[in-house]
Amino acid sequence: MSDSNEFRFLKACRGEPVDKTPVWFMRQAGRYMKVYRDLKEKYTFLEMCKTPELACEVTMQPLGVLDIDAAIIFADILLPLEPMGTGLEFTAGDGPVIPRPVRDKQAVENLLPVNAEEQLGFVGDAIKLVRKEIDGKIPLIGFAGAPFTLCSYMIEGGKSRDFTTTKLMMYESTDVWNLLMDKVCTMLVDYLKMQVNAGAQALQIFDSWVGCLSPHDYQQYILPHLKRVFDSLKDFKVPIINFSTGTSTMLDLVKQAGGDVVSFDWRIEIDEARKILGANQPVQGNLDPVTLFAPLPIIRERVHDILRRAGPNGYIFNLGHGILQHTPVDHVKAVAEMVHEFKYE
Amino acid sequence: MSDSNEFRFLKACRGEPVDKTPVWFMRQAGRYMKVYRDLKEKYTFLEMCKTPELACEVTMQPLGVLDIDAAIIFADILLPLEPMGTGLEFTAGDGPVIPRPVRDKQAVENLLPVNAEEQLGFVGDAIKLVRKEIDGKIPLIGFAGAPFTLCSYMIEGGKSRDFTTTKLMMYESTDVWNLLMDKVCTMLVDYLKMQVNAGAQALQIFDSWVGCLSPHDYQQYILPHLKRVFDSLKDFKVPIINFSTGTSTMLDLVKQAGGDVVSFDWRIEIDEARKILGANQPVQGNLDPVTLFAPLPIIRERVHDILRRAGPNGYIFNLGHGILQHTPVDHVKAVAEMVHEFKYE
Repeated sequence: MSDSNEFRFLKACRGEPVDKTPVWFMRQAGRYMKVYRDLKEKYTFLEMCKTPELACEVTMQPLGVLDIDAAIIFADILLPLEPMGTGLEFTAGDGPVIPRPVRDKQAVENLLPVNAEEQLGFVGDAIKLVRKEIDGKIPLIGFAGAPFTLCSYMIEGGKSRDFTTTKLMMYESTDVWNLLMDKVCTMLVDYLKMQVNAGAQALQIFDSWVGCLSPHDYQQYILPHLKRVFDSLKDFKVPIINFSTGTSTMLDLVKQAGGDVVSFDWRIEIDEARKILGANQPVQGNLDPVTLFAPLPIIRERVHDILRRAGPNGYIFNLGHGILQHTPVDHVKAVAEMVHEFKYE
Repeated sequence: MSDSNEFRFLKACRGEPVDKTPVWFMRQAGRYMKVYRDLKEKYTFLEMCKTPELACEVTMQPLGVLDIDAAIIFADILLPLEPMGTGLEFTAGDGPVIPRPVRDKQAVENLLPVNAEEQLGFVGDAIKLVRKEIDGKIPLIGFAGAPFTLCSYMIEGGKSRDFTTTKLMMYESTDVWNLLMDKVCTMLVDYLKMQVNAGAQALQIFDSWVGCLSPHDYQQYILPHLKRVFDSLKDFKVPIINFSTGTSTMLDLVKQAGGDVVSFDWRIEIDEARKILGANQPVQGNLDPVTLFAPLPIIRERVHDILRRAGPNGYIFNLGHGILQHTPVDHVKAVAEMVHEFKYE
């Protein structure tokens, strides 16, 4: 299919009728695939992200294996932190480390403005390469981390269990928090526009950790900033997916923040979520990634249950979070087929 | 107050009118208090749990400092794992380690039956000491880990991020899973009855990690087992609190499992939760523990908001999870006072 209007993924993002339910998987390129692990033996994770040819190669890896309806550019949500000046390291096993965490006004003021075209141009170049390579077969999704999730890494200096330091900045130094969120949002709008200009046909904004907040805090400290990002990208006419986990009790607020598609995790039945969001709101999700380890009959039961509950319109099948490291490739493959073969009665 | 019928905590558990909203804090005895840290320098965590005089001393520590309406016996949810035969170690910083994890049918069959009176008698002895020491001032809560949470530690061998091994046993070896849950439930009923016989005036069952599951999996793999535990304890006439986190989208299922009080975290506004559970269902929660680090005016705003939303009946003020390590003691103290001073208009 060369006419992007025909892509069932993009149609579902807009709530238009589709021939089959579109499906893709968060982290569909990654460690669960041998081709990825082989490449990873030769290059570091950051080298793979920053070398457009390698990022393109990894992005394309799942396409020959899985019958998926969208590709997503291989990159990391934390890449913009380097040009902002905090540093960024990936240590084996321990996940990301931010060597210079941002914990006070001075540190926020010291953050550098980012010129995405110049400083994150390798992501744009990778997008251009993939668009050429993919040859119009399926659309390509660009992405970035959401303001809260990025700020939480910047403040905590890495992963966190309780996000105490982040929440404390919100509560104790709300002006510093707002300044930090503001700087991150400005960077994000520029970075995402660069991705669209390079050829991204849809965007996903990952608010992976915002579910640690109460609805009250989400509304007060997150929503206005996140809304600004979504509002600023409206002119670009590409559908945007608002992804988060642990937010199933505040989907109404998540929807208020913006985005064409709301993507949520497995902690709510998808028909319940659609009731809260309204039948016309396109949605994405919500299979527990761990289910992919289960025997195929159990997976099929869960996939069919989700499809029936979701209904045929404005729905993109996906997991509630990324594919886990040791997931059997055959199971991921089987799920894509199950989704495409499913017939609504 | 020497007549336990007068305790406002127990009244609220039964949904009866109270003079003031009762308040206590999960992990109200613990590392955030200097007296605890001082004692911890002399003894290991397990020594403190297994020596009734020390467990009593720690249980009593917050009583002189905080104006609380219940004490909770100092113990650990994992203590029963030792007599079951898996081993149990606490390594500094890393949390609990289960040296012999339970991952197949043989391992489940090898688990030893527990005689709580004989093998966990130190918890009963500590309860007796506290009841004497507390002299009828406030009631004493006994507790245990819920079946899912205990099984997840037994299977994973410690803390987990994704609970993949646990979920896999549920999906792939449902008969082994059911056998394991069955053995844990049998142990739990015996252990909790022993605590009531020793003098516990209420019980809390901690399902700290069950929120990693989808509503579908909770209903299929957890609910029947958990319900059996609650049903088996009904004759004992002490109120039981059904505590979990991350379950705000399946509170109806949590309620079905049983318990006199449903305790949930901060991911849902408490008035929303009460709507789902029904106005007559006593509830406990739901302040984010991180809020206790915030400046007092912010804490007050959140506490008052929760109290107003919860309403005056059948409500026990608490956090959504335990007090965090570096929480300022003065703030915990202030919250207990705020709750007691609050007047419903």
